[in-house]
Amino acid sequence: MDADSRLSRWIARTEIPLFVASLVFLGSYTVHVLARGLPDGWRAFWLAVIFATWALFVLDYVVRWRLGGHPLRPSYLRHHLLDTVVVALPLLRPLRMVRLYDAVQARLDRPLLSLYSRVIAYAGVSAVLLGFAGALAVYQLERDAPGSTIRTFGDSVWWACSTLSTVGFGDVTPVTAGGRTIASFMMFGGLALLGAVTGAFSSWLIQIFTRDDERPPAR
Amino acid sequence: MDADSRLSRWIARTEIPLFVASLVFLGSYTVHVLARGLPDGWRAFWLAVIFATWALFVLDYVVRWRLGGHPLRPSYLRHHLLDTVVVALPLLRPLRMVRLYDAVQARLDRPLLSLYSRVIAYAGVSAVLLGFAGALAVYQLERDAPGSTIRTFGDSVWWACSTLSTVGFGDVTPVTAGGRTIASFMMFGGLALLGAVTGAFSSWLIQIFTRDDERPPAR
Amino acid sequence: MDADSRLSRWIARTEIPLFVASLVFLGSYTVHVLARGLPDGWRAFWLAVIFATWALFVLDYVVRWRLGGHPLRPSYLRHHLLDTVVVALPLLRPLRMVRLYDAVQARLDRPLLSLYSRVIAYAGVSAVLLGFAGALAVYQLERDAPGSTIRTFGDSVWWACSTLSTVGFGDVTPVTAGGRTIASFMMFGGLALLGAVTGAFSSWLIQIFTRDDERPPAR
Amino acid sequence: MDADSRLSRWIARTEIPLFVASLVFLGSYTVHVLARGLPDGWRAFWLAVIFATWALFVLDYVVRWRLGGHPLRPSYLRHHLLDTVVVALPLLRPLRMVRLYDAVQARLDRPLLSLYSRVIAYAGVSAVLLGFAGALAVYQLERDAPGSTIRTFGDSVWWACSTLSTVGFGDVTPVTAGGRTIASFMMFGGLALLGAVTGAFSSWLIQIFTRDDERPPAR
Repeated sequence: MDADSRLSRWIARTEIPLFVASLVFLGSYTVHVLARGLPDGWRAFWLAVIFATWALFVLDYVVRWRLGGHPLRPSYLRHHLLDTVVVALPLLRPLRMVRLYDAVQARLDRPLLSLYSRVIAYAGVSAVLLGFAGALAVYQLERDAPGSTIRTFGDSVWWACSTLSTVGFGDVTPVTAGGRTIASFMMFGGLALLGAVTGAFSSWLIQIFTRDDERPPAR
Repeated sequence: MDADSRLSRWIARTEIPLFVASLVFLGSYTVHVLARGLPDGWRAFWLAVIFATWALFVLDYVVRWRLGGHPLRPSYLRHHLLDTVVVALPLLRPLRMVRLYDAVQARLDRPLLSLYSRVIAYAGVSAVLLGFAGALAVYQLERDAPGSTIRTFGDSVWWACSTLSTVGFGDVTPVTAGGRTIASFMMFGGLALLGAVTGAFSSWLIQIFTRDDERPPAR
Repeated sequence: MDADSRLSRWIARTEIPLFVASLVFLGSYTVHVLARGLPDGWRAFWLAVIFATWALFVLDYVVRWRLGGHPLRPSYLRHHLLDTVVVALPLLRPLRMVRLYDAVQARLDRPLLSLYSRVIAYAGVSAVLLGFAGALAVYQLERDAPGSTIRTFGDSVWWACSTLSTVGFGDVTPVTAGGRTIASFMMFGGLALLGAVTGAFSSWLIQIFTRDDERPPAR
Repeated sequence: MDADSRLSRWIARTEIPLFVASLVFLGSYTVHVLARGLPDGWRAFWLAVIFATWALFVLDYVVRWRLGGHPLRPSYLRHHLLDTVVVALPLLRPLRMVRLYDAVQARLDRPLLSLYSRVIAYAGVSAVLLGFAGALAVYQLERDAPGSTIRTFGDSVWWACSTLSTVGFGDVTPVTAGGRTIASFMMFGGLALLGAVTGAFSSWLIQIFTRDDERPPAR
């Protein structure tokens, strides 16, 4: 219980700073990829910010691993799985905002959003984040590759939209091994996220109409 | 209550005229985009119709905003969100026909259509409207762009069908930034709408078969 | 009641012959499209078979319209809608096998197939039929069109598979207005059918696992 | 009952060896396809392994067919259908790991994984297996075909990912009749599998949020 409460206190205190750090990481990576004409001093500065925030995430991961008293509980492992993924791929770190929402809600008495709105909001924000991070990473890998069709960041965002919606026009596509690997994860991740949005939207629509239909007694 | 009843009267009186105005808007925009060889006088006339109907929508929005006494109720905000979207993008204005259906149904005792038929009808009509408006707007932006593959309105409609069904052949695709922005919204809007159709259709099918199976006692 | 029983007897007696006629129609249309090197006599024979079977369908439609005593009942209208569609597009006539299955089942005490199997079987057979009829019609329209990429019936079947599964590679696509119109209906029809298959498959899978999980008392 | 118990004993004893054999089959087929520069002796060796393991599967199929006392029970037929498919297409043999999981679970008291995790795990592993086997077979058929766009195994895996997620970029596509046939099965098989994943994921998400919402009394 002692370890648990120390872990809880650690998480409660670091939640907000680490969320800010994850936004700083995303922002500095964006600057690093998109601002190619920067003077060398600024490039080094942004690279330093990227590695410093990453170091923060690794530190947080190690501290929580040491403080975590019961690492074999299923719920702990599940949270740990997401944590491990976001330490390895810190661009996806803002996905942990689910915990931030829980932290905010814990101080209120009732949920801020209804059931379906929350599913749609989480999945929608995750899709936007996944698309933006994927477009950045693919753009960095593809822009100078021979035979590439993704020459500008606009191309990359357009490609990410057509990939995440599973439309897949194929007018611009990655050609490097790295770009295709990221693209494959985006295809399946996006499919899962959008399946959640679609399922929640469809359930909500049906629930709304069911409630409307049940109201009149004569049916 | 006074403000509420004045708002209700305003909505009840303007519902039908504004729906007609939204069809006029859609029709005049269609003429504006498709009839390129019109004499200058007619072009000016149709542009005037477009802006006049748009002004009507803005006026209606302002009046309802002034009359709306309790702007913080969730249901009010939700309706307001759709209203704000259709004031900014008046091509989607006919989507407000949902309210028209409610107004018609309020005078009858029971729903005109069954639950699933209504979901499918709303989503189907919305998909047709979204596809038509999107095809028009993309055609206007793409037809003279260098390197464009959307040269005729037929190409644009064909592209809109393959986009909204998430098939995405990619034989014709937008190349301008504006066309791609509209296309991205169509991809995700269409995915949501068709998810609703598919979900409702599938639920209905399963419900039908379940009812059939429950009828015989020996199972 | 008299009209109803006469209609029922008409339907009961013509069900099997008309189903055979619809297969004959599909077969002779297939021969007409695929066997281009036939002597003129045989071409005329198969065309005659096509029109004779179509005339049978129109005759059946008229007779049932005359015998149908209560044309305003919703269930009658719904069946009529499918009937009207298959008179206009007789290639889809075998879709009426739903009625044949009902006729066979009415003589038995219990359903031949479980709930989900039936949904999947109907939707699967409909998808195969829609894909085959669409591939035939698109092949007939596209094979001699300038700039066409659908040169062989194999190309057309390959295109139909990628369209109905909403994958949409776009390596072969229709270019004529007629081919694209048929393709658009296939996209949306296929989406609905496959949505039904997916929904039923997913529900069945979940039901199976739910039953498995409920069996052990210790959970 | 005697036949049943002999069949059960046969299945219980051969389950693990046959699963290992199916992995050996998949591995030796992978070596056969990917290692083109092997000396002739090694080629013959791997071919022999492929045929020997296949012979094992056929032998197992025949033995179970002879031992199976009640071949007309629906559950027997259903299992037999999967068995027949995997004898004809031994690359899909590891799909029978469903039985292995059942065998492992039978020795434990309670399910290893929760309901939705199991659906997602089965479908996910099946998708990976289907994608890998399909990419191998398509690569073997396409790599030397004239006009082919699938020149390396990387191309084939990239194509398989975009096919199974129904994105379908179409930058690389099979051109041979054999490759397109396999591709068509992958499209529909992948659609079913991913529909199951999406449905289970979406149901799980909604269940999680429903439980969360039901907890607080004030709603």
